Amino acid sequence: MNVDGIAFRTIWVNQDGWSIDVIDQTRMPHLFEISNLRTLQDCCVAIRDMVVRGAPLIGTTAAYGFYLAMRDDASDEGIASAYRKLFKTRPTAVNLRWALDQMRDCLTALPIAERVGRAFERAGEIADEDVEISKSIGRNGLELIKNLAAKKKPGEVINILTHCNAGWLATVDWGTATAPVYMAHNAGIPVHVWVDETRPRNQGASLTAWELGKHGVPHSLIVDNVGGHLMQHGMVDLCLVGTDRTTRTGDVCNKIGTYLKALAAFDNNVPFYVCLPSTTIDWNIRDGLKHVPIEQRDGSEVSQVLGRLENGEIGHVIIAADGTETANYAFDVTPARLVTGLITERAVVEASEAALVNAFPDLAKTGAV
Amino acid sequence: MNVDGIAFRTIWVNQDGWSIDVIDQTRMPHLFEISNLRTLQDCCVAIRDMVVRGAPLIGTTAAYGFYLAMRDDASDEGIASAYRKLFKTRPTAVNLRWALDQMRDCLTALPIAERVGRAFERAGEIADEDVEISKSIGRNGLELIKNLAAKKKPGEVINILTHCNAGWLATVDWGTATAPVYMAHNAGIPVHVWVDETRPRNQGASLTAWELGKHGVPHSLIVDNVGGHLMQHGMVDLCLVGTDRTTRTGDVCNKIGTYLKALAAFDNNVPFYVCLPSTTIDWNIRDGLKHVPIEQRDGSEVSQVLGRLENGEIGHVIIAADGTETANYAFDVTPARLVTGLITERAVVEASEAALVNAFPDLAKTGAV
Repeated sequence: MNVDGIAFRTIWVNQDGWSIDVIDQTRMPHLFEISNLRTLQDCCVAIRDMVVRGAPLIGTTAAYGFYLAMRDDASDEGIASAYRKLFKTRPTAVNLRWALDQMRDCLTALPIAERVGRAFERAGEIADEDVEISKSIGRNGLELIKNLAAKKKPGEVINILTHCNAGWLATVDWGTATAPVYMAHNAGIPVHVWVDETRPRNQGASLTAWELGKHGVPHSLIVDNVGGHLMQHGMVDLCLVGTDRTTRTGDVCNKIGTYLKALAAFDNNVPFYVCLPSTTIDWNIRDGLKHVPIEQRDGSEVSQVLGRLENGEIGHVIIAADGTETANYAFDVTPARLVTGLITERAVVEASEAALVNAFPDLAKTGAV
Repeated sequence: MNVDGIAFRTIWVNQDGWSIDVIDQTRMPHLFEISNLRTLQDCCVAIRDMVVRGAPLIGTTAAYGFYLAMRDDASDEGIASAYRKLFKTRPTAVNLRWALDQMRDCLTALPIAERVGRAFERAGEIADEDVEISKSIGRNGLELIKNLAAKKKPGEVINILTHCNAGWLATVDWGTATAPVYMAHNAGIPVHVWVDETRPRNQGASLTAWELGKHGVPHSLIVDNVGGHLMQHGMVDLCLVGTDRTTRTGDVCNKIGTYLKALAAFDNNVPFYVCLPSTTIDWNIRDGLKHVPIEQRDGSEVSQVLGRLENGEIGHVIIAADGTETANYAFDVTPARLVTGLITERAVVEASEAALVNAFPDLAKTGAV
């Protein structure tokens, strides 16, 4: 998408022809910087420290990390080691594993001498495929927005609420939840996005609001407490969120707080759609509440808030008394019953096992249930 | 309640015998300071700038403000002027008006020479009455906690979730939502409180967590997004919140985000109780969603977060790109259908017009509906 009029992706091959550049998302929206990744270790750190984040971008970064690892050691041992090191950076990210499986499977079959070249090529394909997937999600979601627009007066704004960042910064381009929004905006449909700030890490405030602003999409930043009130008062036409992992029954694991917005949408008859590449569906799990492990992160994310200080530097404020106990659950699970539909790259699918298996018979049969 | 072992109220007569001291809540939990109020204007500023906040404490501060105004001008004009100036500091606070009505009505009947003395006395009575109301709410709520404890194994912790600050800092002492918690804790029942940080102003992080900690009540600070997840996993036994205004039908206007927690409680069969003095019931309104005006506050509360900087000073960080649009709704309305019950100073009452009118026939008849 555009940044000040220039088209960007989140990850690309540096002009040196071999190393990898990514947008460093740790100090956004205050600093827009490019980080250069030259080794497997660089990629592991980038994923672990959230220089890159978002399920699809993590997958692509891992693929490029695999390629950089092959430059140092393209042996079978090198493959096993790269897989292991990349996997443990974010063990709950399903399409991190998918990307690693892709790389391992295509490289293992090859002679060692061909592995670096093929790894570079395959990682590039994964990046391009991700863009195509986002665009397909965008086209499918665009139809829903067009249907909503058809029920409104000409020129009347469609209000869309989103949580966290499932934008182009979470993918290679276009995003998942934002892809329909960008397509609607580009097509001249007037859209306005309510952006949840998404505590504790504020990805909505720092990333979603930034990327919408840079591309010129009207939006308003709100605290996470506000969405219910807006929906009660008819100020939200559609909720669009992303997901880190979706079960084969349509339960949606996404950033903490998603469940609360789904409840409010359900209570007010606001359509609640989840946008996802099918690679993030975990076909091995039926009950998301019971079987998706929920990451607990450091309590300092709760007691401190990062931002730009008055002197322009990046720093934090402490919002609680010293020694205050905290709890920091990073994700929650929205039961399928609260999800109006899943916007995938193939189609908009009902959030149920029958509909998902019907839409993805090839993938569903890989599940061990 | 206790602060480092010393019993405090939030408002009291200074040792000079005439001026008024309040705990300055603007820089808590980082600075615990006392502010001395000597004029009507001091009180108006204290209410407007949230040196004092919380419906019951605002009422008591307004009563003392009325008294300080009488010291300068005890004429009928002085009464009218004090009423007007105090009322406009927070026009949506129902028991600000109640306290002002009390003061005006008892003073107007008196000769001018007797007004200062009576105003001082009446304000003190309002403060003491508020403490008695909180204690009654506490005793009524304590019974609910005892019932929950009876269903658990001996010594098993009762987990209570609260939103914003309806603690003793919001009243003269004990609080509303916290009064049952303090009483249970003082009675040796093991309680643990999940404290919503309550963006945008973080009253949970800065006030509720602080006061629970100072009194020794176990608690964990969480971001506002977490409560739904906790309730899905059986980690909340009871929700206790306060309210700024309750309609005669039991709709509850409280800090933004309360509605989302009520939805989650309803979805997971967690009892959701609202603690309130009957003075905050607005007998003139039936439909809270339609007829309670929702205050919109400055957007800087959304784009900035106040706290303690690394150098120890109080300051803020900016969490969004410059120029980001914001929307800042301060309250929402939780429909009565989601409220398990209202814990008042008289009894625990069902959130319905029939039950409220039955419990408060004397007050209900004042409503113009």
